[in-house]
Amino acid sequence: MIKIKALEEHLEKTFGIHFNDSSLLAEAFTQASYVNEHPKENLKYYERIEFLGDAVMQLTVSEYIYQRYPEMPQGKLSRLRIAMVQEDSFSKFALECQFDQFIRLGKGEEKAGARSRSSLLCDIFESFIGALYLDQGKEAVVDFVTKVIFVKLDQGWFEQEVDYKTKLQEFLQQHGDVVIDYEVVSETGIESDRVYTVAVSADDQLIGEGNGTSKKRAEVQAAKNALSKLQ
Amino acid sequence: MIKIKALEEHLEKTFGIHFNDSSLLAEAFTQASYVNEHPKENLKYYERIEFLGDAVMQLTVSEYIYQRYPEMPQGKLSRLRIAMVQEDSFSKFALECQFDQFIRLGKGEEKAGARSRSSLLCDIFESFIGALYLDQGKEAVVDFVTKVIFVKLDQGWFEQEVDYKTKLQEFLQQHGDVVIDYEVVSETGIESDRVYTVAVSADDQLIGEGNGTSKKRAEVQAAKNALSKLQ
Repeated sequence: MIKIKALEEHLEKTFGIHFNDSSLLAEAFTQASYVNEHPKENLKYYERIEFLGDAVMQLTVSEYIYQRYPEMPQGKLSRLRIAMVQEDSFSKFALECQFDQFIRLGKGEEKAGARSRSSLLCDIFESFIGALYLDQGKEAVVDFVTKVIFVKLDQGWFEQEVDYKTKLQEFLQQHGDVVIDYEVVSETGIESDRVYTVAVSADDQLIGEGNGTSKKRAEVQAAKNALSKLQ
Repeated sequence: MIKIKALEEHLEKTFGIHFNDSSLLAEAFTQASYVNEHPKENLKYYERIEFLGDAVMQLTVSEYIYQRYPEMPQGKLSRLRIAMVQEDSFSKFALECQFDQFIRLGKGEEKAGARSRSSLLCDIFESFIGALYLDQGKEAVVDFVTKVIFVKLDQGWFEQEVDYKTKLQEFLQQHGDVVIDYEVVSETGIESDRVYTVAVSADDQLIGEGNGTSKKRAEVQAAKNALSKLQ
């Protein structure tokens, strides 16, 4: 059984972060499936905090790159932000921070491999950020994100990540026009934990599929998968 | 000719807001077309500040509704946020604040009616928020947004606005399943000032079109237009 105490120790040891309200941390790392299996414990699950954390990350990243690249036009800022906040990036950060070890899952979800599912890891990264923001405010989030994400800008980390959709377009259209179409082919899961599957086609031929917690994220995954097949 | 001085007076008189750095305000209210017509003045246009303002609004709205509705599930929070930050809402707020009078446009854009264009009004609302955030920080933004937007929650303002896409779906599917599809039919304008046109169809029959500064916003407009025709 996963103890929030162990998570607190991990955060202190690895990041020097001490939570004042550990119930926020518990909420951020608990999936609905776990709450359903422990009805007497009156637990909360992460979705609401993740909703907030998503917006906190949008602003934290936006403000940082706005200030850091004073000459960068808006279009490029937008593409960089997309690369930095996409599911692929957040799920990697979650793994790097070893957050996967501390997620409280129901038995069915555990068996289904949810602990290594990219969409869940991304959600948990955002919900952790939401909890940190509520517990300690914006500065603590900036400190953490600087260590975990912003240092990677110097390492050219996001140059490779940048905008798979544009990359796919450039790749496909190098010899002339191609009609690229993204289409949602399925939406699964309950509303608060929905996963979108998007198919991408070139001139009506299916070239890739991708999943994500939003249509945008699923599109990026589809483009990435198409590219890795085509190249 | 539009003077930033007049805008400063308007903000002081109407909202009690005094800008420390009026060059931020000038940047926030200047469109690229105006900059191009005044090459010697070394002006900046609003897109970068709008990029920041968009994220500031996302967080300001998210944090407010997260705190105000402690029992509201994430799905409903998301729909409410979409309703509050959609182009339709922001362009109305911009008009209500009389921001349209102070936008600096090139002559061609002025003739083309840009001053009353919903997508531009929405952009300017966001860029004003970005400038206010840079000049005076988060609290000043919360104060302003409380007066202009959050008071409208009590007036039931967003209940009518909520989620045209869900409304359209419910309307179309009241007598059985209907395949609803949104498709981008055109993208116009330069990258930093792009307008998307989205067509929405029901069982392959076109039922509406809409424009917006993002695909999501264009989809919401298309759903709204379809609904007003169908109902």
